[in-house]
Amino acid sequence: MEDFIFQNTTKIYFGKYVLPELGNEVAKKARKVLLVLGTGQVKRTRAYTDTMQSLHDRQIQVVEWNGIPPNPPLSAIKQAIELSRAESVEAVVALGGGSVLDAAKTIAAGHLFQGEIWDCFGPKRKCRILQALPVFSVLTISATGSEMNGTAVVTNDETHVKASLYSEAIYPAVSFIDPSYQVTLSESMTKYGAVDIFCHVTEQYFNQNTLSDVSDALSEGIMRTVLQRTKQILAEPTEVEPRAQLAWAGTMALNGLPGLGRGGGDFSSHRIGHALSALYDFPHGLTLAIVLPAWMRYVYKEAIPRFAQFGRNVFHLKGSDAETASKSIIALQHWIHSLGISTSLVDQGVRIDALQEIIRNESIPYPLGKLRVLEPNDVENILHLTNY
Amino acid sequence: MEDFIFQNTTKIYFGKYVLPELGNEVAKKARKVLLVLGTGQVKRTRAYTDTMQSLHDRQIQVVEWNGIPPNPPLSAIKQAIELSRAESVEAVVALGGGSVLDAAKTIAAGHLFQGEIWDCFGPKRKCRILQALPVFSVLTISATGSEMNGTAVVTNDETHVKASLYSEAIYPAVSFIDPSYQVTLSESMTKYGAVDIFCHVTEQYFNQNTLSDVSDALSEGIMRTVLQRTKQILAEPTEVEPRAQLAWAGTMALNGLPGLGRGGGDFSSHRIGHALSALYDFPHGLTLAIVLPAWMRYVYKEAIPRFAQFGRNVFHLKGSDAETASKSIIALQHWIHSLGISTSLVDQGVRIDALQEIIRNESIPYPLGKLRVLEPNDVENILHLTNY
Repeated sequence: MEDFIFQNTTKIYFGKYVLPELGNEVAKKARKVLLVLGTGQVKRTRAYTDTMQSLHDRQIQVVEWNGIPPNPPLSAIKQAIELSRAESVEAVVALGGGSVLDAAKTIAAGHLFQGEIWDCFGPKRKCRILQALPVFSVLTISATGSEMNGTAVVTNDETHVKASLYSEAIYPAVSFIDPSYQVTLSESMTKYGAVDIFCHVTEQYFNQNTLSDVSDALSEGIMRTVLQRTKQILAEPTEVEPRAQLAWAGTMALNGLPGLGRGGGDFSSHRIGHALSALYDFPHGLTLAIVLPAWMRYVYKEAIPRFAQFGRNVFHLKGSDAETASKSIIALQHWIHSLGISTSLVDQGVRIDALQEIIRNESIPYPLGKLRVLEPNDVENILHLTNY
Repeated sequence: MEDFIFQNTTKIYFGKYVLPELGNEVAKKARKVLLVLGTGQVKRTRAYTDTMQSLHDRQIQVVEWNGIPPNPPLSAIKQAIELSRAESVEAVVALGGGSVLDAAKTIAAGHLFQGEIWDCFGPKRKCRILQALPVFSVLTISATGSEMNGTAVVTNDETHVKASLYSEAIYPAVSFIDPSYQVTLSESMTKYGAVDIFCHVTEQYFNQNTLSDVSDALSEGIMRTVLQRTKQILAEPTEVEPRAQLAWAGTMALNGLPGLGRGGGDFSSHRIGHALSALYDFPHGLTLAIVLPAWMRYVYKEAIPRFAQFGRNVFHLKGSDAETASKSIIALQHWIHSLGISTSLVDQGVRIDALQEIIRNESIPYPLGKLRVLEPNDVENILHLTNY
């Protein structure tokens, strides 16, 4: 077991009918907020009317910023920062999924930051964010786990680089997770969200050969929950109960807990996936579905007992370590295919002669990963493997 | 899955060699602290010298309060509150186990509270603690989980009542968990600690029939960790690795997470155990070892599928629900006996004619519990069952 430091200050309201508390929580810190929305479709939902009602009930002034697409672009975020300053808002409220949340966190940080905010992103960052406006979130899709962590992932739409910002200052003060909002999600959003959650756990689970009993049990439990509840949701999309179970799995998957005692995550698949999103604007969950099984096939021989544990405790496989390790990857790929998602890069229209551009994209910091340290030629091999 | 609100602000430093950070963390909030110790034996340990060194390195003034026995008595805590005021300390540092931590939290609250602090304890409390001095902790035994929650359990040594205080204000600001400090713990302290950890999870696991996938997996993982690692520790008490695994299980067991989505804990066994500690000064873990299996036998028919899940996922039992449920309790009792702990009240010298005093002790608030709501005659039946 490895040493660690852990703190997560976010307050969570989870369940049906929790939104009335939003206004009360915001009122403790702000009289005027920037409300960050996605592409505007959310305005037709109950999540939007509940949010507005709750803020209105406490006479909170609301300035709307409507226009954060998936893979949130830096240019839109910078416009929102300008607006937040012009309007002198005192907090940022995110209503949406991970992209909206990540944008809101960056706006909250950028509001108080004097320099170039992009300089605070990525492993080669030149500065750190030490303060931000308070962030509140109302979650409409469980996927990224951004509702309970201090990370924001943003795409620089000029340079086509997707990178992340981490700061203690951007943990949401309070997040509201009402799973009943998610019963109207499209099938594809639900699936990509499920793959994202699963992948967040695997990225932390496979980083090293260090065992961490409680983190392992938690991780395996989250992964089993994703498998079981996604199946139920796709069969009965309007049922709240499986949505609730998946939602809490999604939040727990990336709040820091599943990786404790193992020395930090690997996150190679995320980095390679970020390059694909930065260049092709693919949904985040799709990029993970493509990269994760290929990455596993490329690295699993470094950690046969660990992959065997994964196969036994997540997919209920039996057999020798070598056999179970190998079968576990097939089981994962089979699950992704069962969702109707292709794991092949060629199927997404990416041509072989485009691989060098992906490999050299700055979203991927080399040397990459922990379980096996990857160089550009390794990533090329992994990208080829997606087609097998 | 039930709705919930969750927040836990405590920062954790976990591992070997983390103590040097204590002084840095304390210095952010205080220049002078009350250092709360147990019965003084701790002064011969490395935990004490590391603590003093770290505080000294940052020129933190230290006022020592040496004299918190197990089942911390209100009278000693009140004296420490007086001292903390006379010395105008700005924070409280606990060095010890759960009793020392609970005393430190109460001192931190009492320092700023004008009324009778005991009025804030128990289910019939007359007031609430809204502010406290910052609390820091250096843990020397993993058992109560007090290092990462907002609860303090104290014994009123005048009225012989053991009750708890809860406040958001008394979550430790920072807790230091160095498992290498625990290799010198006595066998009996290790065992009672292990039973306490296990029981914290069961109290939350059996409260209702509501499933909460991730909380269930986490709970079962903590319980399996306790069973497996305690055995290892008793075979090789000086090994740090199993102590580390047990330590993190102990912290996670009562930081709020294992019960999320199930509507709060039952805690009948704890309440009955508190009456035994208040009247006989039994170690907390011993009282749980006595009460928990008897409580289970008394209530398990209300929740056969749940006890069957417990049997399968914690003790690896097989068979029908009814069979596995019943066997799970035998397996638990067998584990406790394997630690050399008797689960019989008579074995502890408690006479049958003393039962009424236990049942009527105000540590037990009636109606008691959730899985099955208990009245005094039920508690009498449970106490009799401890002898079978």
